[in-house]
Amino acid sequence: MGVADLGLPVDVPSTALFTDHYELTMVQAALAAGTAERRSVFEVFTRRLPEGRRYGVVAGTGRVLDAVENFRFDADVLNFLRERAAVDEATLEWLASYRFSGDIWGYPEGEVYFPGSPILRVEGSFAECVLLETVILSILNHDSAIAAAASRMASAAGDRPLIEMGARRTHELAAVAASRAAYVGGFTSTSDLAAGFRYNIPTVGTSAHAFTLLFDTEREAFRAQVNTLGGGTTLLVDTYDVTEAVRAAVEVAGPELGAVRIDSGDLLLVAHRVRQQLDELGATNTRITVTSDLDEYAIASLRAAPVDAYGVGTQLVTGSGHPTASMVYKLVARAGSADADAPLVPVAKKSSGGKTSVGGRKWAARRLDDHGVAEAEVIGTGRVPQELQDRLLQVQLVKGGEVVAREPLDVVRDRHAAARAGLPLSATQLSRGEAVIPTEYV
Amino acid sequence: MGVADLGLPVDVPSTALFTDHYELTMVQAALAAGTAERRSVFEVFTRRLPEGRRYGVVAGTGRVLDAVENFRFDADVLNFLRERAAVDEATLEWLASYRFSGDIWGYPEGEVYFPGSPILRVEGSFAECVLLETVILSILNHDSAIAAAASRMASAAGDRPLIEMGARRTHELAAVAASRAAYVGGFTSTSDLAAGFRYNIPTVGTSAHAFTLLFDTEREAFRAQVNTLGGGTTLLVDTYDVTEAVRAAVEVAGPELGAVRIDSGDLLLVAHRVRQQLDELGATNTRITVTSDLDEYAIASLRAAPVDAYGVGTQLVTGSGHPTASMVYKLVARAGSADADAPLVPVAKKSSGGKTSVGGRKWAARRLDDHGVAEAEVIGTGRVPQELQDRLLQVQLVKGGEVVAREPLDVVRDRHAAARAGLPLSATQLSRGEAVIPTEYV
Repeated sequence: MGVADLGLPVDVPSTALFTDHYELTMVQAALAAGTAERRSVFEVFTRRLPEGRRYGVVAGTGRVLDAVENFRFDADVLNFLRERAAVDEATLEWLASYRFSGDIWGYPEGEVYFPGSPILRVEGSFAECVLLETVILSILNHDSAIAAAASRMASAAGDRPLIEMGARRTHELAAVAASRAAYVGGFTSTSDLAAGFRYNIPTVGTSAHAFTLLFDTEREAFRAQVNTLGGGTTLLVDTYDVTEAVRAAVEVAGPELGAVRIDSGDLLLVAHRVRQQLDELGATNTRITVTSDLDEYAIASLRAAPVDAYGVGTQLVTGSGHPTASMVYKLVARAGSADADAPLVPVAKKSSGGKTSVGGRKWAARRLDDHGVAEAEVIGTGRVPQELQDRLLQVQLVKGGEVVAREPLDVVRDRHAAARAGLPLSATQLSRGEAVIPTEYV
Repeated sequence: MGVADLGLPVDVPSTALFTDHYELTMVQAALAAGTAERRSVFEVFTRRLPEGRRYGVVAGTGRVLDAVENFRFDADVLNFLRERAAVDEATLEWLASYRFSGDIWGYPEGEVYFPGSPILRVEGSFAECVLLETVILSILNHDSAIAAAASRMASAAGDRPLIEMGARRTHELAAVAASRAAYVGGFTSTSDLAAGFRYNIPTVGTSAHAFTLLFDTEREAFRAQVNTLGGGTTLLVDTYDVTEAVRAAVEVAGPELGAVRIDSGDLLLVAHRVRQQLDELGATNTRITVTSDLDEYAIASLRAAPVDAYGVGTQLVTGSGHPTASMVYKLVARAGSADADAPLVPVAKKSSGGKTSVGGRKWAARRLDDHGVAEAEVIGTGRVPQELQDRLLQVQLVKGGEVVAREPLDVVRDRHAAARAGLPLSATQLSRGEAVIPTEYV
């Protein structure tokens, strides 16, 4: 098997297996019926934001591009499908030469989104587009959920750095994507070496309680750490008694000690006490890092506390209550025949049972008020009004199967900060509410 | 880089990068201080079950064994650590020859657990054991969370098959592990081809709304599907009008139509109507599959409905409200020197701020009542009482660095079914409550 760089810390032969069985049976049936080549438009969007959230964050687009580029059915995969009789020989033959040759447009990664925003649009033949559904949704649903939580935490933290340290609370590879999404949302660094390796995100970390417990006394542990990592290290001070630990820490490392970390207890109270003690000991530049079960609310509640950095784990990698975005991938238009110039017909599910959607290939623009602040997400299927033509949100990501919009992660991160700053101030309220701007269909 | 089979549908060179930065700095400091070789015992346990849950499910153990076996620092990883100055040269040298050489004991995969259960115990030198913390917790926290949700859903579904179809709602590789954990918990099949490829779990699927919308009429779509997939296929009947769709489905496929799928609306009501209509059309053997936003409560509420199979996505892969187990990996005992025969000293965090734990290497046994039903999880650090010696839960998984307890996934799945059946009946109540048996420390 050939290998491909897939946005993972590992070499992955193909993304084609990250696919639901029914995508393949649909291809088989469409091939047999002569409809597989009908020109089609699929769109990714979400019907609603998670309850109470004011905005969503597009994340994972860069990983989607890698996945599309590497979506191939090699011999091992084809043999597996043949053994399972998942599809017939004609379909296996078609899959063997699969390469996405269509176009993809989308919101640039880091941009914010709202209910109905056409975050990604995939155009090509029905068969080549439908196959990409599962892996595109996996990536966008996961990464966007994490980035949205990260963005709220970053708002709450203000200028204070945020460390992503949730690897142990989620799947080992989801953790790497979570670090990436957290960085997009505004985090500063990560504990996860794989995320550092793959995405060049700064990694940090010094010691855990186990290290202190390994030694006969806390002081010996501190001495061992400072001896090898230097006085600029971060000492963990809540294994036994915090006050005694802070005293020992400054005695061992001197007043130039880099930081202390508090990982339990009433962080507001303890941070104030530790700050006062550090100052009394002359360690006025020693920083305080807190790391115990934080979420955006806890971070906000510590705004007035003498805290210098936050480490966030569980709540970050689980999307702070919303571990997945509810994005869907829907056929919104398709040609009535396989002719290349057959006109597109808008289509949509009509059943009365909910889950309806709006047919037709959509554009999207963000309308600003007189002060340059976003006031509506405008979505349409026809002509773009003159006044919105320079506010269009979608950019071309893939052209004729070739990725045309790769970008460094720092560009994405900056874009998100700018997009969030362009929303009404109430966007960053943590309290539950409606989407901060309405979605208008024209 | 060499490649290794890592419980993924992909070849992964090493699991060593799935590690928090601080594990490495702790190794450096312990090496420098001469404490790295102290014999140590780490235990994985959880302080509590997710709120309201009656029991937990151990899942991921097989993946942990793969991860431990493949935990190596190859040249690429070492170069990365050197460039980042993550650790010093002495530590890099030590890492280069790293191979876990200790012992691991644990609850066999599929077993149930309770607060405090010592699910996994890792013994060896401090340095070799501490490094494994992150990847072990990533795997167990993710997989056990999914398996616990799956187990509740399987209880609620009774004999009806459950299809895992959540790949699109979670990270593309977390999805594969989620399929595996769901299978352990009692699911029957998956939509995820990667899970079929890697774990030999049966894969299923036929068509989505997009397929129906591709055709000019629903009837044409049904005909196309039946022509190539046969009359035993499952037709999706809620794209337009369900009643018309069911009529068309039976006309096209005949009364031997395999199944219909309903993916929206009031499933209880619609299932009853569709069953009646199918019976009237003579399609008395045609099954009904439902697949819309199900969780264990929705499944239970459909117990009296004429439903033949459930497809579950979002709520399964997000752990039905609890996307991660809260397992921790704690040093509970270590030698006072690097001598091979130095006695172990129990250790534990003592800070008043919470997160305390019980020191010492623990055994665990499940005490049964006179009817053979579990009545307590008994955990101790000393001698095992005579009457519990044949109820001990931990088994050896790794001996001197060698995996000694690989087993097929079906064995794990059967074990879980038996373990759940051995709990008091109230274990499978869906209502919130306490752990179904108490944890006793002796």
